[in-house]
Amino acid sequence: MEFLVAMEVNVPHDVPADRQQRLRDAEAQRAQELAHEGVLVRLWRTPGRRANWGLWRAEDATELHAAIASLPLFPYLDVHVTPLAQHPNDPAIVATSDS
Amino acid sequence: MEFLVAMEVNVPHDVPADRQQRLRDAEAQRAQELAHEGVLVRLWRTPGRRANWGLWRAEDATELHAAIASLPLFPYLDVHVTPLAQHPNDPAIVATSDS
Amino acid sequence: MEFLVAMEVNVPHDVPADRQQRLRDAEAQRAQELAHEGVLVRLWRTPGRRANWGLWRAEDATELHAAIASLPLFPYLDVHVTPLAQHPNDPAIVATSDS
Amino acid sequence: MEFLVAMEVNVPHDVPADRQQRLRDAEAQRAQELAHEGVLVRLWRTPGRRANWGLWRAEDATELHAAIASLPLFPYLDVHVTPLAQHPNDPAIVATSDS
Amino acid sequence: MEFLVAMEVNVPHDVPADRQQRLRDAEAQRAQELAHEGVLVRLWRTPGRRANWGLWRAEDATELHAAIASLPLFPYLDVHVTPLAQHPNDPAIVATSDS
Amino acid sequence: MEFLVAMEVNVPHDVPADRQQRLRDAEAQRAQELAHEGVLVRLWRTPGRRANWGLWRAEDATELHAAIASLPLFPYLDVHVTPLAQHPNDPAIVATSDS
Amino acid sequence: MEFLVAMEVNVPHDVPADRQQRLRDAEAQRAQELAHEGVLVRLWRTPGRRANWGLWRAEDATELHAAIASLPLFPYLDVHVTPLAQHPNDPAIVATSDS
Amino acid sequence: MEFLVAMEVNVPHDVPADRQQRLRDAEAQRAQELAHEGVLVRLWRTPGRRANWGLWRAEDATELHAAIASLPLFPYLDVHVTPLAQHPNDPAIVATSDS
Amino acid sequence: MEFLVAMEVNVPHDVPADRQQRLRDAEAQRAQELAHEGVLVRLWRTPGRRANWGLWRAEDATELHAAIASLPLFPYLDVHVTPLAQHPNDPAIVATSDS
Amino acid sequence: MEFLVAMEVNVPHDVPADRQQRLRDAEAQRAQELAHEGVLVRLWRTPGRRANWGLWRAEDATELHAAIASLPLFPYLDVHVTPLAQHPNDPAIVATSDS
Repeated sequence: MEFLVAMEVNVPHDVPADRQQRLRDAEAQRAQELAHEGVLVRLWRTPGRRANWGLWRAEDATELHAAIASLPLFPYLDVHVTPLAQHPNDPAIVATSDS
Repeated sequence: MEFLVAMEVNVPHDVPADRQQRLRDAEAQRAQELAHEGVLVRLWRTPGRRANWGLWRAEDATELHAAIASLPLFPYLDVHVTPLAQHPNDPAIVATSDS
Repeated sequence: MEFLVAMEVNVPHDVPADRQQRLRDAEAQRAQELAHEGVLVRLWRTPGRRANWGLWRAEDATELHAAIASLPLFPYLDVHVTPLAQHPNDPAIVATSDS
Repeated sequence: MEFLVAMEVNVPHDVPADRQQRLRDAEAQRAQELAHEGVLVRLWRTPGRRANWGLWRAEDATELHAAIASLPLFPYLDVHVTPLAQHPNDPAIVATSDS
Repeated sequence: MEFLVAMEVNVPHDVPADRQQRLRDAEAQRAQELAHEGVLVRLWRTPGRRANWGLWRAEDATELHAAIASLPLFPYLDVHVTPLAQHPNDPAIVATSDS
Repeated sequence: MEFLVAMEVNVPHDVPADRQQRLRDAEAQRAQELAHEGVLVRLWRTPGRRANWGLWRAEDATELHAAIASLPLFPYLDVHVTPLAQHPNDPAIVATSDS
Repeated sequence: MEFLVAMEVNVPHDVPADRQQRLRDAEAQRAQELAHEGVLVRLWRTPGRRANWGLWRAEDATELHAAIASLPLFPYLDVHVTPLAQHPNDPAIVATSDS
Repeated sequence: MEFLVAMEVNVPHDVPADRQQRLRDAEAQRAQELAHEGVLVRLWRTPGRRANWGLWRAEDATELHAAIASLPLFPYLDVHVTPLAQHPNDPAIVATSDS
Repeated sequence: MEFLVAMEVNVPHDVPADRQQRLRDAEAQRAQELAHEGVLVRLWRTPGRRANWGLWRAEDATELHAAIASLPLFPYLDVHVTPLAQHPNDPAIVATSDS
Repeated sequence: MEFLVAMEVNVPHDVPADRQQRLRDAEAQRAQELAHEGVLVRLWRTPGRRANWGLWRAEDATELHAAIASLPLFPYLDVHVTPLAQHPNDPAIVATSDS
């Protein structure tokens, strides 16, 4: 099942710069792992904000929560999850059924 | 440039059933064309609603508007567009730069 | 997977009273079927409103949408779906794991 | 009477990790007691958030408030309560009246 | 248990004036009955609007819904219910416990 | 004139526990005085929150503000005031005019 | 007591143009009467909208409601009332107390 | 040109009481100057809040901003400005044109 | 003075297609006139919607309202106006003061 | 492509005054550079607030984000971006196509 996930990153200003950098490096590393596992499918930045939209794939909401909670920045994230159903006009489905 | 597009479909109840069906058929046809042109990339249904989320690709907002306005259901759509920027952790980018 | 589903029922005032009654009878019948299939788990009325909260169980959002769209009142419903993840303190889980 | 209760947990970042753990342990303990008393009926996690939805049962809003205020995390909770009325199509009621 | 109930009255403009008057007379009559039964405790008008705030008393949300749904204007009402718990500083309680 | 007043109490977490207790004691004392003066008519707790709904009576908004600002917790309150007009169906009025 | 009153005028499109004009004439006439009675103190147009902000003076919310409900356009108005308290820095008060 | 200006005053709790008093004294002084210059026309307190509504007069938004930014409490203000257009039924205009 | 103006166009579906076209032609004509008068400075379409953002220049809100109300589509517009003040970093100002 | 960008500036009160001044100087400098590059086209102040509206021009959202993130005040900004499409009635376009 796919989910649309919106995240705002709110690291407090008093977190030291080098710790912020380490968090961001670890975040990139974890995102790469989740991508390899097929959980994180796409990731976009919301322009002008420390925020992103992501397309995630998980068995259910429980597995999705575990994946999001595994992010090093999780304590600082404000996350909203939208469940997605298949649409008969989705190009990804149409392409498959055409072949 | 990619855009996240949320659409609500509000066909008035007094539109005859057969006209509603013709509109929906034409909509599926037009969606397929937009997919073949690479403009409509993904499409999901919002569960429980006559609504969808889509991932669209266009040169800019002007081209995107023209694509959305070409949908047969456009007069009945309530549309919100979110511009998307590239994220360095996007699996699609990472995969490309890894190879 | 479980979902929390909020529904508002907005049947237009000009739908004849007997058709409204037939719709409500068919709705009760379909709700009973969905309950027997284990899809509709609980249903509560929002006091003072033609609205309800329901606990639904489905494989994923696609199956959930099909169930909601099968309701006779679907054309008149305004539906919001909240995905639910398992909570370690859920009495239903604790009871099971205790035994 | 049943209530739908949405809770956000906002423990400040400067609360030491071990105190946070003790709070969470005490919370799980208290949740289990409330479950045994039949006050906490179901509990779900909102995916991606330190938040939950719960189905609670209490004599009235006064008794419900006492139960929620007895949670160790109460000083850090943002809580919204929705009162629930019986729905004639509720599977729990239909099942009972069918037998 | 007490409830705070906010109601907006939205009678469509095309309902004939005399039917509107009959509805309003029946509404006043029903309100008086609910007052005599101790269900409707206080009623205030929101200045400038066809809307009111009321203090209602009922066994639970199910009984409250039945009372509200018995209003002749119910098909045209937009209702929001707030559950109320006892407050230790409530003058009504303090007065009682003082005597 | 009567007013519906909603209050959220936001005492910062770093106010010492004993000072919080003294504030709450003084608040209860002041609430009792306002009740005796006929300014505070009813007070209810919003279940699950450090918040209350109150029915207040004052000559006008200026007198109401003075009463609210006299509360010891005033620096920590988030207050919203709704002005109330008499409703012809108010049981309190009907009872008086019936006698 | 003074009130800030925001009004939106929503005359349906199918009301004939000449009836709309008669309503607007009657509205101007009634506004002038309310001004002479000292109830309507100031009136401004919200630029770009069929809406206005007004400063009204009335004994209380009951008298204010009667004044607003006496407007010929009342059935088509969406009105929000804000109660106003005296401010010690109000030029109108300072001017008076200076003299 | 006239403007409706809503202000919330959010002085942090850790600003010492005597500095808060000096700020408030300076604010009253500056308000009086702006009144004498004809920029601040009326000022009301929102009951129950550290907030006010004001009627301001300035050449344009640039001059209005300079006036607001000259308030000693400006660093702690949350301000919303509504531009006002003349209304043909405004008593202030009608009175003038009648004479 | 400059204003940012957001407009939604809501022509009812039952307005005949040829009348809609005549309205749109008249709107384009009037927009061109307002541009020549220097009142309408820039105009953008909100992608996906029958809506636009415009930069307008007028003496004050009264003159702005007159300009907007002169649009043939005005009866069908939902308009929100934001007043703009000069910013010292505005390229248009900096460019002028540099020369 | 053009974008409408709304920015709120939230520099914490505990940032020393001289550092705030240096930030503001650097911000003005960077704004001037972005103007010279044709990225920042216009900038207005929201009256009464530490906030601005800007008209920006960039190849796409990715380039826009890079420009905004290059602002010295970026860590303290709350930014919302609105994508803009060309409107056939835009005076800038009409002027060009007329010549």
